[in-house]
Amino acid sequence: MDKDLILLGHGSGGKLSHQLLDDLIIPTLSDIPAAGRNDAALLTHNGQRLAFTTDSYVVDPIFFPGGNIGDLAINGTVNDLAMMGARPLFISVGLILEEGFSRKALAEILGSMRRAADLAGVRIVTGDTKVVARGSADKIFINTSGIGALEHALEIGGNLARPGDQVLVSGTIGDHGIAVLASREGLELDSDIMSDSAPLNGLVQEMLAEGEGIRVLRDPTRGGVATTIKEIALQSQVDITLREGAIPIQGAVRGVCALLGIDPLYVANEGKLLAVVAPEAAERVLERMRNHPLGREAAVIGEVTAAGSGRVRMETVVGGMRAVEMLAGEQLPRIC
Amino acid sequence: MDKDLILLGHGSGGKLSHQLLDDLIIPTLSDIPAAGRNDAALLTHNGQRLAFTTDSYVVDPIFFPGGNIGDLAINGTVNDLAMMGARPLFISVGLILEEGFSRKALAEILGSMRRAADLAGVRIVTGDTKVVARGSADKIFINTSGIGALEHALEIGGNLARPGDQVLVSGTIGDHGIAVLASREGLELDSDIMSDSAPLNGLVQEMLAEGEGIRVLRDPTRGGVATTIKEIALQSQVDITLREGAIPIQGAVRGVCALLGIDPLYVANEGKLLAVVAPEAAERVLERMRNHPLGREAAVIGEVTAAGSGRVRMETVVGGMRAVEMLAGEQLPRIC
Repeated sequence: MDKDLILLGHGSGGKLSHQLLDDLIIPTLSDIPAAGRNDAALLTHNGQRLAFTTDSYVVDPIFFPGGNIGDLAINGTVNDLAMMGARPLFISVGLILEEGFSRKALAEILGSMRRAADLAGVRIVTGDTKVVARGSADKIFINTSGIGALEHALEIGGNLARPGDQVLVSGTIGDHGIAVLASREGLELDSDIMSDSAPLNGLVQEMLAEGEGIRVLRDPTRGGVATTIKEIALQSQVDITLREGAIPIQGAVRGVCALLGIDPLYVANEGKLLAVVAPEAAERVLERMRNHPLGREAAVIGEVTAAGSGRVRMETVVGGMRAVEMLAGEQLPRIC
Repeated sequence: MDKDLILLGHGSGGKLSHQLLDDLIIPTLSDIPAAGRNDAALLTHNGQRLAFTTDSYVVDPIFFPGGNIGDLAINGTVNDLAMMGARPLFISVGLILEEGFSRKALAEILGSMRRAADLAGVRIVTGDTKVVARGSADKIFINTSGIGALEHALEIGGNLARPGDQVLVSGTIGDHGIAVLASREGLELDSDIMSDSAPLNGLVQEMLAEGEGIRVLRDPTRGGVATTIKEIALQSQVDITLREGAIPIQGAVRGVCALLGIDPLYVANEGKLLAVVAPEAAERVLERMRNHPLGREAAVIGEVTAAGSGRVRMETVVGGMRAVEMLAGEQLPRIC
C-alpha cells in the first residue's frame, strides 16, 4: 500500500475516506471543522437558511435492479438535503460522458432523472456536459448538486446526539449495495433484490412534524449503517449500542451477504435513513415513519448509552457484544 | 459518424453540443426554454435572487502553464456566476479520482483551489470524493457548483442584445486553449503562452457600476469567441458584425494558431469576458474595464447591426466579410 497514491478505499466512505478528508481535503479547501461535517452545508444568506450539497455518481453497472445512475443521482442529492431537514428545491446536473457512449442509454438515464426530480418535487435548473475520449472515463459519471431551504428553526446535525436518545432506521438495510453487486457480478439469484433508491424528503417532512425530538438524520450510503453510526458517535462524542436482532434485513440480502462473506451493516443504502431521536419522542417518530410508504419497516435499532469518545458496540443475536468500527478498505467499489 | 453514439464533439461547446442540448438534454431534464439559457440559472427564493451553476472540469493535461485543473475549476464557476451579474458566494467541490493518482498532485491541485477561492472571495463549503479503478477515469475530474447573489435589479442575459449595442472583449483571446494545447502536445515554443485562467467577478463588479447599459455578459470558454457571439445572436435574435482587426490576440498565440491551422476565434478562454453594451454606455464601460487589471487590453470588437435571425459576420482585415458560425466538430478536446 503506497502512502503516496490514491487507493480505491479512499472512495469507500469508510476509514480511508475519513483519513483523506481529515488529513488533506478539508484542511486544504475549507475552514469547516470536522464536528460541523454533515451531508450538506448549512448556509445563511440574508437571514435565510439554505442547505447546499454535491455528490458525484460513478456506480457500476449504470443500470441495476431498481434503478439506474440517473435516478440514483437525483435521489442521493435530494436525500443529502433532506438529512439536514431542508426542503430540496433546485438541482444541477454535470455529465461526464465517454466518447462512444450510447445516446439511447443517455436518453433513458436522463428520463429517469427527470422522473425522480418530479417525484421528489425538485427542479433541475442548470447543467453541464463534458465528453472525454474512449478509455478516459467509464461510460457516464454524473454530478448533482442541490440547494434546499430550511423552513423551520430546528437544529439537526451529526453532533447533536445525546445520552438516552434512540437510534431508528427507516427500513431494511443493504438492499442497494447487494442489488448493484449482484447485477455487476452477474449473480443468478432466486429472489430479485432491488435497490432501495428513493427520495426521502417526504418521509423527513413527516418526521419533522414531531419537532425538536429529532437530533440527527443521516442516510447510510457508502460505508453502510455501521460507518454512519460510528460517524455520528464520533461527531457527537457519545457511545452508541446497536441491537443486531432489531436491525431489519431482507432474507435474500442476508443470504447473499452470508454467501459472499459481506457484513450487511457495511453495505450501502440509497433510500433509508438513520435518525437519532430524543427518548420521549421516539415512539411518536417511529409511528410517523411507519405510516409513510418509505418507512413501513422502520425500527428502533439501538440507543445512545452515554457521553463518551465515540465508541459503537453491537449486542449480537447470540448475546455477545462486539465493537463496530468504520468500514476499513473498500468493500464494494463504485456502489453509488 | 454513428448518430446513436456520443462523440467528442458533443462536448465541444459548439454546434454538436447545442444539438445534444436542444434535442435531448434540455427537453428531458428541464422546463427551461432555449432562450433562457445562460451561464447560470437565475432562481428566486423567498423574494431573493440567486444564481446557481455547475461545471465539470476534465482538462488534459491537469497542470499547464498558468494554472491547473484546480484553479480552473474555481475560476470557471466563479465566472459563470459573475456572467449573470451575481456575486459568487459558495462553491461545492466534487472530485472523481483514478486509483493510483498521486496524492502529492492532489494536494497541489487542492491548494490551488483554495487560493483561487480566496482570491475570488468565495467559500468552498461542501464536497464529495469518489475513486474509480485505474483505467476507469483519467487521473482527476472536478465538478464545481456555485451559488451567487444578485444584489441589484439589473437584467443581464444572452437574450437582451439590441441593435446598436457594442460588443466588447476584456482582453486577448485564445491564451488558455493554446497554452493547454501546447502543453499537451509538448510543443517547444519560443515564448511562454500562459492560460488566462482568472476570476472575473471583480471586473464585472466594476462594470456593473455603469448600471443598465450592460445587456449581456458571457465568458467565451469552450467554442471560443465565435461560438459565444453566435449564441448571443441566436438568443437575442439579432445580427452581429465583428471586426477582425479589432480583436486583441497575442502575437505568440496568433503564431501557434497559424502554424497549426487553428482559428483563434474558436479557442477557449478562461479569464476573458464578452459584453454587449448599450451604445451610450460603451465608452464608459470600456474605460472601467481598462482600469481593471483583468481588462487592460479590453476593446470594442463589433456591434449589433440589426434585429435578425442570429447571423454573425466578420469584417476581415483584408476588407472582406465572412460568416461566423458555431464551432463544428471538436477542435481541442478536454480544454477545460
